[in-house]
Amino acid sequence: MNALRRGFDNEEYATRTEAAQAKMAEAGMAGILLTTEPDVRYFTGFHTLFWQSPTRPWFLFIPAAGKPIAIIPEIGADLMRRTWITDIRTWSAPAPQDDGVGLLTDLLSTYAGRGETIGLMKGHETHLRMPLGDYERLIAGLKGLAIVDATDIVRSLRMVKSEAEIEKLSHICAIGSRTFARVPEFAHQGKPLEDVFRAFRREGLAQGADDVPYLVGGADKGGYHDVISPPSRRPLARGDILMLDSGANWDGYFCDFDRNWAIGNADDASRRAYDVLWRATEAGIAAACPGATCRDLFHAMQKVIAELDDQGGDVGRLGHGLGMQLTEWPSHTNWDSTELTENMVLTLEPSLGYGDGRIMVHEENIVVRAGGAELLTERAAPELPTI
Amino acid sequence: MNALRRGFDNEEYATRTEAAQAKMAEAGMAGILLTTEPDVRYFTGFHTLFWQSPTRPWFLFIPAAGKPIAIIPEIGADLMRRTWITDIRTWSAPAPQDDGVGLLTDLLSTYAGRGETIGLMKGHETHLRMPLGDYERLIAGLKGLAIVDATDIVRSLRMVKSEAEIEKLSHICAIGSRTFARVPEFAHQGKPLEDVFRAFRREGLAQGADDVPYLVGGADKGGYHDVISPPSRRPLARGDILMLDSGANWDGYFCDFDRNWAIGNADDASRRAYDVLWRATEAGIAAACPGATCRDLFHAMQKVIAELDDQGGDVGRLGHGLGMQLTEWPSHTNWDSTELTENMVLTLEPSLGYGDGRIMVHEENIVVRAGGAELLTERAAPELPTI
Repeated sequence: MNALRRGFDNEEYATRTEAAQAKMAEAGMAGILLTTEPDVRYFTGFHTLFWQSPTRPWFLFIPAAGKPIAIIPEIGADLMRRTWITDIRTWSAPAPQDDGVGLLTDLLSTYAGRGETIGLMKGHETHLRMPLGDYERLIAGLKGLAIVDATDIVRSLRMVKSEAEIEKLSHICAIGSRTFARVPEFAHQGKPLEDVFRAFRREGLAQGADDVPYLVGGADKGGYHDVISPPSRRPLARGDILMLDSGANWDGYFCDFDRNWAIGNADDASRRAYDVLWRATEAGIAAACPGATCRDLFHAMQKVIAELDDQGGDVGRLGHGLGMQLTEWPSHTNWDSTELTENMVLTLEPSLGYGDGRIMVHEENIVVRAGGAELLTERAAPELPTI
Repeated sequence: MNALRRGFDNEEYATRTEAAQAKMAEAGMAGILLTTEPDVRYFTGFHTLFWQSPTRPWFLFIPAAGKPIAIIPEIGADLMRRTWITDIRTWSAPAPQDDGVGLLTDLLSTYAGRGETIGLMKGHETHLRMPLGDYERLIAGLKGLAIVDATDIVRSLRMVKSEAEIEKLSHICAIGSRTFARVPEFAHQGKPLEDVFRAFRREGLAQGADDVPYLVGGADKGGYHDVISPPSRRPLARGDILMLDSGANWDGYFCDFDRNWAIGNADDASRRAYDVLWRATEAGIAAACPGATCRDLFHAMQKVIAELDDQGGDVGRLGHGLGMQLTEWPSHTNWDSTELTENMVLTLEPSLGYGDGRIMVHEENIVVRAGGAELLTERAAPELPTI
């Protein structure tokens, strides 16, 4: 099942680092400080669920040349030594009085002394994963250091996937597709939605996912009303429209797509909504060529959606990037002019409102190739399937 | 299986809010701004996995009196309206040009104009979940507003659980205990550790967990060497010591404990290490009375651990708080003088190094009651069990 190799060759991390350093040189940055799991993993291969504990901060510094430097809790030293990183500086964490701030100050004071500029992730869809008080103390002790936003650099690298990354994404999308194919076997009239969720997660694991951390959905007569709630104990009933939207992962890479079903029978309004979204997705697939922009993708889908709903709905966008995170840059919206390039991995996620406050969402995952979009997910049925 | 009711009565959220407001009054804070999932959920009951997407920020403001105010993406409005919150201000997110900053500025400018003070989570084990650039722009537009650290207030509330919270924690710990009891049925010689992990997650779901997001562990001949790695494809072999450490959750509350087994036969050094850790845990259980400090707990366990290992190891502490997060304040360390009070829920997590770079960890979950510690987990066997 998992013949695909985990991790990447060291060469891949070196390539990523050198690409960042080339962009840093252009931008006049002497280094970039990273604090989040996907950013640290992207440049090192350091992969652990330990980040789920909010207790300890972890840092990676990318200098202008050479390998990144890890500044991490001692508990992670053994695992970090197994990556390509060689300069690993540790402290015994947790240590509220100095949770890495002293080590960061040692590292960065040289840059501060020279009045240099370093980058930090400050932009859209980012956050600083360390206590704000520690950050304020850190920069207060680094007079002369200029700190600028490095989001554009990291974003531009991470948005375009390597072939090895696309293999992993293709693998987890296939696992997701096999899992969705089994849903009619365990989602039936009388089964509480909560139990459907549990069965879906178990099936995803059985199909080879490392985990199914994200699972949302809805089910209600003639259509569901929100797409972010936890499942209720309400049993599925004839006439329900059921939607499951899942982010499963394998080796740290995510799929993110959904499927809709009618339970017993489908009402006309829901069949019509499904048809519109299916065709909107087709329009998105056709539009996802190198050179097009996210705005183009948005309009291609929105034009079809407008047959039923010209309001736009609550979701705020019609898809996004996909990779080490469930959602990544870019966003298929009217304001995102990111140009699609080969090897971007994206979701297409048209949604609409219909009837009396009902909504429907549909989602596929694609990779942009020279000749256009290639589906990573097994395409949803063209008509609303009935269980 | 899940006869226990999900969520809490509105009264519980009102009580939490009023407790925060009393402490805010003492500290001279006119409000507290919260940005993370557990903090927002603690005061509202707003519960969704949608936080897993890093794309959208979510905000909750607790004023000096009255209900909290939600400033959230429109996609969450329907779910938030089902909580006790009534003042819900939304925007269509994502919107990089103004992802809530305008709404926050509208809300906070009154406070700024009066030169008031508001609190933000800046302390240990916290982070600010919004783009740093947005935060910098926000405060630059709020001249006159003093921003101080609110960690002590939120920490002091969240550390002490209500009976309704303890019921949920007890429920998930029981699910965890039943799951660990099944491990000998699916962890055996020849089975790759990765498949043991997958089977454990599936069993946890079958036993009633909503999810098993955290699972780490190790297995190696005569003892494992690290406790944070993802599982390898190496098959379990006779003489291995296997450890699984899991954080499963139910209705947003976590268990966090581990178990050790010998595969086929146990070497003497590992049996001895296990015995020391089991007795260290006993000492921790005996010491966990109201009035004792985390430092006392640490020393009670460390005194036993020192029979084998006086170095302290890499973990950095011997347990921590438990609740809506896998790890919460306080920490059982030499530097944490937090006084234990009734209804704190804690992990006891002694660890030691032995032999040639091997480590062993052991963990139980307890609630502190007037008469001392009550176990929430089914106590581990006093001798290293063999599969």
